[in-house]
Amino acid sequence: MTLYSEITEQPERNKSLLASQKKTVERIAAEIQKRDIQYVFLAARGTSDNAGRYANYLLGAMNGLPLALATPSLFTYYNQPPKLKNALVIGISQSGQSPDIVSVLEEGRKQNCLTLSITNESKSPLAQASDFVLDLKSGPEKAVAATKTYTSELMAVAMISAALSKNKKAWAELEKVSGWMKQVLKQNDFISQAAQRYRYINQTVVLGRGFNYATAFEWALKMKELTYISAEPYSSADFAHGPIAMMVSGYPVFAVAPKGKVFDSMLEMLKRLRSDLSAELVVISNDKRALSLAQVPLTIPADVPEWLSPLISILPAQLFAYHLTVAKGYNTEQPRSIRKVTETT
Amino acid sequence: MTLYSEITEQPERNKSLLASQKKTVERIAAEIQKRDIQYVFLAARGTSDNAGRYANYLLGAMNGLPLALATPSLFTYYNQPPKLKNALVIGISQSGQSPDIVSVLEEGRKQNCLTLSITNESKSPLAQASDFVLDLKSGPEKAVAATKTYTSELMAVAMISAALSKNKKAWAELEKVSGWMKQVLKQNDFISQAAQRYRYINQTVVLGRGFNYATAFEWALKMKELTYISAEPYSSADFAHGPIAMMVSGYPVFAVAPKGKVFDSMLEMLKRLRSDLSAELVVISNDKRALSLAQVPLTIPADVPEWLSPLISILPAQLFAYHLTVAKGYNTEQPRSIRKVTETT
Repeated sequence: MTLYSEITEQPERNKSLLASQKKTVERIAAEIQKRDIQYVFLAARGTSDNAGRYANYLLGAMNGLPLALATPSLFTYYNQPPKLKNALVIGISQSGQSPDIVSVLEEGRKQNCLTLSITNESKSPLAQASDFVLDLKSGPEKAVAATKTYTSELMAVAMISAALSKNKKAWAELEKVSGWMKQVLKQNDFISQAAQRYRYINQTVVLGRGFNYATAFEWALKMKELTYISAEPYSSADFAHGPIAMMVSGYPVFAVAPKGKVFDSMLEMLKRLRSDLSAELVVISNDKRALSLAQVPLTIPADVPEWLSPLISILPAQLFAYHLTVAKGYNTEQPRSIRKVTETT
Repeated sequence: MTLYSEITEQPERNKSLLASQKKTVERIAAEIQKRDIQYVFLAARGTSDNAGRYANYLLGAMNGLPLALATPSLFTYYNQPPKLKNALVIGISQSGQSPDIVSVLEEGRKQNCLTLSITNESKSPLAQASDFVLDLKSGPEKAVAATKTYTSELMAVAMISAALSKNKKAWAELEKVSGWMKQVLKQNDFISQAAQRYRYINQTVVLGRGFNYATAFEWALKMKELTYISAEPYSSADFAHGPIAMMVSGYPVFAVAPKGKVFDSMLEMLKRLRSDLSAELVVISNDKRALSLAQVPLTIPADVPEWLSPLISILPAQLFAYHLTVAKGYNTEQPRSIRKVTETT
C-alpha cells in the first residue's frame, strides 16, 4: 500500500532533508536576521496549515517571533489585503499549486516583504512567487492523505528555528529524529491490533497543547480524511471552555501528551477525563503517568525533547489512522470526495 | 428561561453599547493611529475567541491591519514570550478572569505595547492590565452559554473598525443593527418547529467564510455546549482540503452564507454538497439561491451589509441551538461539565 509505505519512508526522508538542505536553511536564516522582521505571516491549507501551527509555537517559544496564520480569503476576495510591513511571509504547500496560498505570497512580494515557500515542488507557482524556496525533497507523495510531506514540513520549520538561534544542541537533536522515528514505527503490529477496538466509533476529540497542538490537528485531519469519522482537535484549555460538555461515559478521546512544559496541564485534563467523566483514552506519550491512564497507550522514546516531539508523535497517530481505515474497510489510497491537489481560491 | 431571554435582549444591548461607548471607541482609535501599529495580537478563549476571528477578517479587510491570534500557552508555559514590537495587544473576555489571557496583556504592557481589553467586567484583572478598556455593557450574563456578550463583542470590534476608518456610512449602518436583530428574532416560532427535525443528530459540520468564519465557529460552539453533539466548524476552503471526505447521504451541514464577496464560493460548495453528496442543509442567508438549496432555510434581512452580517446571522443560530437543546431534553441554563467562568493557564 502506498500510504503505508509513505509512512514508513519518513525516517529516511527526514534524514536526507536535514543533510541536503541545511545550507539553504542557514542562508534563509541569515537573510531573515538581516532584515527588521517583526512577525511571521504564514499561509497554508489542510496538512500544511498544521505544520504552520507548529511554526506558530516553535518560532514563538524559541525565536521570539510572533506568527499570524493568514486568512487567504482576505487576499482573494476582499478589496484590500492587509499591510504587511516588516513581516516575513511564508507559504507552505506540498504541491505549491493552490491559488489562494500563491496570492498571499505574491502580495507579500508586492509589498517588499521577504518571502519564503516550503514546498515539495520547487518549480511550482508558489515557489516562483518566493524569494527563497525550501525544497522538502520528500519524493513524490502519491497517497491522497499526506504523511511524509507533513513531517518534512515540520523538519523544515525546526531547521529554520535552529538556524535562527544558531543552537548547536538543537542541530544535534535534529540528527536524532530519524532514529526516533524508526523506533516508533516498530509498534506497527501493536497499533494494528489496538485499532480494532475502534472499528465502530464515529466520533472523537483529539487533544494536544503547545508544540503538539499541531499534532492534535493533524491526527484529527487524518481520521477525517481516511476513516470519515468526526474528529475535532482542541487544546486542552480551549476544550475546557465549552466543548468538554459533550463528554459522556465511554466517549473516545485521543491525546498527545509527551513530557515537556505543558505536560502537567495535559495530565490534569486526562485525569479529569478518566476519573470524573469516564472517557475512553488513546494517549501518545513518553510519560508513564499519562500512558497509565489510557485504554490504549502509544509510546514514544523517553529522550525525545518537547520541541521535536511533534515530528515523532504524529507517526503512531498516522499508523493508527491507517489501520483503523483498514479495519473499517475503507480505501487507504484514495479517500472518497477529495483529490491530492486541492485548488481553492 | 435565562438563556432565551438573554438571546432576545440582544437588540437593546447592542443599541445601548453603540450609544454609550462611541466616544470611548473614538479615543481608542485615535491612540491606535498615533502609534506605529503594524499588527494586532489578540488573546481570547471560547466564544470570545470567535469574536477575535471576526476581528481578524474585519480589521484586515477594512483597516489593512494584519492580526495574529495569540497562543496563550506561549506566555504561561514556555520560557520566553514572543517580542511584540509595534503590536496592538487586545484581550477579549466576558469575565476578564482567565489567567492566561491576562498574562498576554501583562506581557504586552511590559513590552510597551498599546493594550486594550474588551470585557463585560470593567474592574476585572484583564481590565486592570490594559491601557484602554472597552466595557461591553451587556448586563450580567447568567446562562453558561454566552450569547448577548458575543454580539456585544462583535459590535465592539465593528465600532473600532468604523472609528479607525472614520467612515460615516459605517456608523450609519451600525445604527441599523438593532432593528435587523429584532426582525430576525421574529422567526423564533419557525426555528422552534424546524429544530425538531434534528432531535436525533449527533454530529454536524458548520461552514462559513470570510467575516462569517466566526459565525461558523460560534454556531458550532453553541451546538457543542448546549446539545452535546459533535459540530465542527470550517471555512468552505479548508473543508474542501480533506474533511469533505466525511460526507455521506443525509449528513447534516449547517452553513452561513449571506450575500457578499465570498458568497459565490459558499454557493458553489452548497451546490456540491446538495447535488453531488446529498447532504442535508440548514442555511442562514439572505440570498434565495442559497436558501433554496436548504431543507431548513433561515432568512436574515436582505439589506444587511456583509461586514455586519455576523452580528445578525448568529441570532437564528443561537435560537436553533436553544430550541434543539429543548427538543433533546437538555438543560439550557447549565450545561453539564462547564462553568460560566473558566480559568485556564
